[in-house]
Amino acid sequence: MIPTLKWTDEGVSFVDQTRLPLEEEYVLAATYRDVADVITTMVVRGAPAIGVSAAMGLALGVKKSTAATIAALSDEFDIMCDVMANTRPTAVNLFWAIDRMKTTFSRLAARPGITLDGIRSALIEEAQRMYDEDIAACRAMGAHGADLLPQSGGVLTHCNAGALATCGYGTALGVIRAAVERGHDIHVYADETRPFLQGARLTAWELMHDGIPTTVLCDNMAASLMRQGKIGAVIVGADRIAANGDVANKIGTYGVAVLAKEHRIPFYVAAPLSTIDLDTPHGDDIPIEERPHTEVTHHAGRQLTPHGVGIVNPAFDVTPAKYVTAIITEFGILRQPYEESLARLQAAAVNG
Amino acid sequence: MIPTLKWTDEGVSFVDQTRLPLEEEYVLAATYRDVADVITTMVVRGAPAIGVSAAMGLALGVKKSTAATIAALSDEFDIMCDVMANTRPTAVNLFWAIDRMKTTFSRLAARPGITLDGIRSALIEEAQRMYDEDIAACRAMGAHGADLLPQSGGVLTHCNAGALATCGYGTALGVIRAAVERGHDIHVYADETRPFLQGARLTAWELMHDGIPTTVLCDNMAASLMRQGKIGAVIVGADRIAANGDVANKIGTYGVAVLAKEHRIPFYVAAPLSTIDLDTPHGDDIPIEERPHTEVTHHAGRQLTPHGVGIVNPAFDVTPAKYVTAIITEFGILRQPYEESLARLQAAAVNG
Repeated sequence: MIPTLKWTDEGVSFVDQTRLPLEEEYVLAATYRDVADVITTMVVRGAPAIGVSAAMGLALGVKKSTAATIAALSDEFDIMCDVMANTRPTAVNLFWAIDRMKTTFSRLAARPGITLDGIRSALIEEAQRMYDEDIAACRAMGAHGADLLPQSGGVLTHCNAGALATCGYGTALGVIRAAVERGHDIHVYADETRPFLQGARLTAWELMHDGIPTTVLCDNMAASLMRQGKIGAVIVGADRIAANGDVANKIGTYGVAVLAKEHRIPFYVAAPLSTIDLDTPHGDDIPIEERPHTEVTHHAGRQLTPHGVGIVNPAFDVTPAKYVTAIITEFGILRQPYEESLARLQAAAVNG
Repeated sequence: MIPTLKWTDEGVSFVDQTRLPLEEEYVLAATYRDVADVITTMVVRGAPAIGVSAAMGLALGVKKSTAATIAALSDEFDIMCDVMANTRPTAVNLFWAIDRMKTTFSRLAARPGITLDGIRSALIEEAQRMYDEDIAACRAMGAHGADLLPQSGGVLTHCNAGALATCGYGTALGVIRAAVERGHDIHVYADETRPFLQGARLTAWELMHDGIPTTVLCDNMAASLMRQGKIGAVIVGADRIAANGDVANKIGTYGVAVLAKEHRIPFYVAAPLSTIDLDTPHGDDIPIEERPHTEVTHHAGRQLTPHGVGIVNPAFDVTPAKYVTAIITEFGILRQPYEESLARLQAAAVNG
């Protein structure tokens, strides 16, 4: 089991994803602000992992709070939620997790006879429940999606939508794992995913850990592999899915989707319900984080580009729904038109 | 003037393109084998520059030869040509340049009364003539192609098809330079071009040198910029153009071409006649160099990927002719069907 994040008595423990694959080091976030930093600096990343990390961060903040009254704790909790919400803008799982913790807090605070310690332990339990649910959702996505992947052949993925992007098993890589468990003979082609190299570093690391054959390629090599017939399917994760089915995911995903369409290769998105944001009607309404330009201009402390040149570094892009062959969720496979299938799913989940 | 390569009394001088942009160092190749090494290790790269470098390398070899007879020099020259031909397989300019030097050698050797020194000085002159012709061809491409580029807006380029890929001025960047000289208000978007980063390092460096506004992006960001309407045209160079118009160029070019088509953005290729290879009927017949995997797995001496993961590193890909809006040559602009326009061009060049 890859220990992406873990609740401990001392705080939240994270494997440091900025140092993988050659160094496997752990960071202990001892305060909620530490957790916020860990999210901002991408020690932990991946939409589902960010969501549960934020929930654990809030639980940690409440646990460590010295507030003497529920009202005082509530005021502190609002600040904690604001700090957590300001870490990264695109993954909606972050806001989903904060909202769920807020709702839980409010429900608890309104309960007659509740104590500060009662709130503390209930919030810790809620965060741990979200952790368990996340792994279960990944397993369910795997079960639903496995047979969409070819019985034999190459599957391309972009970025890391694996165990390291979730509490375990992964979304896109969870589907790949499930297919492999069912006997599919899959070779994974992992885009290195500039500038942060989640594919080269993280996807390669966790798939090798599981003994799944993996080849790393530079992002710009995917088109050529597709033209050579080496890619039978593409599967990626998502940071936010709008109500119309547009998918925000790691920068470069949109390009891969266009290439998949041109080569008549199915393009799948694997994401839990917590990634679906029906309050955002259209992909172009999704805020796209611009990351520090040094991620592009420097590597291993060495500057690559001439001084003063312009740089862009959007961390995500939006893939219009028309390029998405299917969305694999923990509740089943969604097809176009996504306005309808997403709304039906959300209604069923709320009612069921 | 950017001193990509230069004939000197001591040998051939090259700016070291593996160290740009932060270090501007020069390498002196004092023997023909040094020149071959400089080509293999990409101290010099870019199809037209490789061609002229090889020609200068052969001139250098002949100059330094201690052969006592024309027959002995001829035997040595054959070996030199073999060494040079084994440096890199894809850019046809290399073989074009070797053939031209071979033809010149044979013509000279057959001349009554020719001396060894006469052959030496004539081959040096021929290599220098190829140098001058290369710059003139770039200027002519610029003049023909400038007005294909938008009067105002973003132009995307991939890799470096600039002064550093030629003897000066550049093919694709020559067309951009000519457009800027005519008053076009162009902002260049330069794909960083993994793994060797010719865009981030070389294109950015030489365009900033000329004061042309430039933004570097990771290769996987181009699709997103296109969808945002920021790219009015794409222009790239070529390493070999087959008789049917298929274009081999730096890995990633094909993906950019597909994206350009999807966004209805014109996709131009700028290349001199020496890049056109009518003996290769189809792009899939072009040999594609696989470069050392450490170019992908390491950067600045630091390993990025886990030990033992599979790696691919094709240095080039093939863009089918149907994606190419026009080919800009020193003799004018070619349009589809390229079988016909390329054959007409070649016939006119041979006869004219």
